[in-house]
Amino acid sequence: MVKNPGIVTFLSDYGLEDEFVGVCRGVMLRIAPDLTIIDIDHNILRQDIRHGAIILQQSLPFLPDSVHLAVVDPTVGSGRRAIAIETGWGEYFVGPDNGLLIPAADSSGGIRRVHEITDEAFLLRPISRTFQGRDVFAPASAHIAAGVDPAELGAELKIDDLARIEIPVAWVHDDHLHAEVLQVDRFGNLQLNLGRPQLGQVGLEGEDRLEVRIEGHRLNLNVGGSYSDVEQGEFLLVEDSYRYLSLSVNKGDAAARLRARAGSTAIVGPSSG
Amino acid sequence: MVKNPGIVTFLSDYGLEDEFVGVCRGVMLRIAPDLTIIDIDHNILRQDIRHGAIILQQSLPFLPDSVHLAVVDPTVGSGRRAIAIETGWGEYFVGPDNGLLIPAADSSGGIRRVHEITDEAFLLRPISRTFQGRDVFAPASAHIAAGVDPAELGAELKIDDLARIEIPVAWVHDDHLHAEVLQVDRFGNLQLNLGRPQLGQVGLEGEDRLEVRIEGHRLNLNVGGSYSDVEQGEFLLVEDSYRYLSLSVNKGDAAARLRARAGSTAIVGPSSG
Amino acid sequence: MVKNPGIVTFLSDYGLEDEFVGVCRGVMLRIAPDLTIIDIDHNILRQDIRHGAIILQQSLPFLPDSVHLAVVDPTVGSGRRAIAIETGWGEYFVGPDNGLLIPAADSSGGIRRVHEITDEAFLLRPISRTFQGRDVFAPASAHIAAGVDPAELGAELKIDDLARIEIPVAWVHDDHLHAEVLQVDRFGNLQLNLGRPQLGQVGLEGEDRLEVRIEGHRLNLNVGGSYSDVEQGEFLLVEDSYRYLSLSVNKGDAAARLRARAGSTAIVGPSSG
Repeated sequence: MVKNPGIVTFLSDYGLEDEFVGVCRGVMLRIAPDLTIIDIDHNILRQDIRHGAIILQQSLPFLPDSVHLAVVDPTVGSGRRAIAIETGWGEYFVGPDNGLLIPAADSSGGIRRVHEITDEAFLLRPISRTFQGRDVFAPASAHIAAGVDPAELGAELKIDDLARIEIPVAWVHDDHLHAEVLQVDRFGNLQLNLGRPQLGQVGLEGEDRLEVRIEGHRLNLNVGGSYSDVEQGEFLLVEDSYRYLSLSVNKGDAAARLRARAGSTAIVGPSSG
Repeated sequence: MVKNPGIVTFLSDYGLEDEFVGVCRGVMLRIAPDLTIIDIDHNILRQDIRHGAIILQQSLPFLPDSVHLAVVDPTVGSGRRAIAIETGWGEYFVGPDNGLLIPAADSSGGIRRVHEITDEAFLLRPISRTFQGRDVFAPASAHIAAGVDPAELGAELKIDDLARIEIPVAWVHDDHLHAEVLQVDRFGNLQLNLGRPQLGQVGLEGEDRLEVRIEGHRLNLNVGGSYSDVEQGEFLLVEDSYRYLSLSVNKGDAAARLRARAGSTAIVGPSSG
Repeated sequence: MVKNPGIVTFLSDYGLEDEFVGVCRGVMLRIAPDLTIIDIDHNILRQDIRHGAIILQQSLPFLPDSVHLAVVDPTVGSGRRAIAIETGWGEYFVGPDNGLLIPAADSSGGIRRVHEITDEAFLLRPISRTFQGRDVFAPASAHIAAGVDPAELGAELKIDDLARIEIPVAWVHDDHLHAEVLQVDRFGNLQLNLGRPQLGQVGLEGEDRLEVRIEGHRLNLNVGGSYSDVEQGEFLLVEDSYRYLSLSVNKGDAAARLRARAGSTAIVGPSSG
């Protein structure tokens, strides 16, 4: 049984421009009228499983122990499986078997068991081949939040058979690190796949200044604890609230100034100025 | 009495860029603090009654039987009436008398009775002439969800006197169908006002390939069951989750590639290649 | 004790493009699983304290008497204080001590007492220096909504020591008023910091036509009660739903046509045509 019955968190790449998310909410409330739905983020980059997996994993420590519905589903309708995961900490993850759920489940005590979602008694029929958030994942989530055991939804699967994805890790080359922008927030902060401890791999852990090369720019900048550690309009590297390093501008938009985006390479090394 | 007391679904063209929707939510929760509000879609094309009517009708089967608040209101303040409809299936629709609510109400067992919303005891005073979502429709919806009978809100109206709109239907010309894009979703899929059965009107029901002319493009494409029935980047016609045909690109954005949008004409006929 | 326990309203400049708002929701529901969160507006102009203060104050009359969480926080991490205000009408405001909360609190019976938020027993530890909406303001709001007295969160502060901001007021010059666009809504309506009564300061209160100079344009237009008082596509000044004058176009987008935006100067005087 889920620890917080009656709560479903919901993350997707459906956007808020149309009724997709609203219809999924409706489907869940039809099944469980007292359900509380927490929208985490519906602006995952379109069909970008990796981006969805990163945000789900990052957000998880701040969410109630509950049922987590996540849909980024570029191969919907092609036969990929629908799954419900129970974790070591007693949380549930519902979504497509494409790797999206795994990093978050690993952060929740690991996968204890996983069931395929196939029993149409719990789903909307006919199941469309283009919108299974509505027809499969939303109803399955609502039923689990209402107390249904995932074993009722379908056969148990082998954990080793689940699809997995790779989250890129910064790597060392000579005296610098090749990092990547994981995501850009509304303020234009560029979150790198790099924390302060990893700087130690190239002997830069205690440095106050570093050099970052990104999208044709070469920046020598301060490493700070908050945006206001530098003057307005200046670049800095700051430890963000998830303990990643973020390439930011105090009261400015780093992404716009550098024309950088999720996936941009950032080479971090010793400062030359 | 409404079947799911305490639930209001909410659709509008207010957008989420400012506080309009939030203020309507606040008004409803002031009246009924335990209310559950389900946001369906607030990005209806600005002042486009027809678009709102289509989305409301399409979404309805997936929503709890409850009170449905819908506001697309280009003639606010001009004297158009505010109405509350009770349907044959015991659902309620609240909004302006401009045709917005009718297709959905027709899908809910038809209109059983309709009342004008005039009794200021249930509304916010003074009623502004520019934001009646806040002053009229939101409070009326909250009161009905809390158990107030629509008859308390104002006089009964004749059903035949309600304003109506026309939802465009695809029409036959020679061996092809003149269809129209009903809406574009976040992924750039172009939903046509055309289902598979209608293809039979021009003898194309069983065809695997069709020709579509749209915005100066002439496409010969597959008719598929899911996006992945064609190669990545290829166009196809796919039955969408509402059983309309959608002009789509597997893992791509059909609207962007064709510069098409809601209202674009799409001529569907036999394939020439 | 708050009048409507279990409700938090939430306004911010976090946007809905990423998971910031969702994570704050999660934090609150972890603390108080039965909490109702009302999203007012998360698209406050980035880091624009004044814009946030105006929207919060305008929205307040339409919200339940409850805990109001507001975050526009350009100096996060720099040592600015976190505060919880109790007002004369028994409402609570939680946010940064940068002036954001003051106009709304003044509209709620004034500030009765204010406490700094410092006791980490009620907050997320470690407190990040970049995302205190998540670590400080959201948890403090949830605790107050659940019945915790602000005095438990930290030391009482002197009301006179709080940071304040200035909301611009239209000013008289000769026979005209220098006003400013407070905000632009989704429909392109330009809300001025000017109500009808203030027109009396230059003897224009009863005028049916006025001249407005804005962004290089000189408009002679009607003063109306609703958009439809002028022909489609025509400009007018209309009293908006907050009783400010709004420079609008019937069924059109005034902001786009005038290239005006929040902060644009609008000089309002007697009509010359």
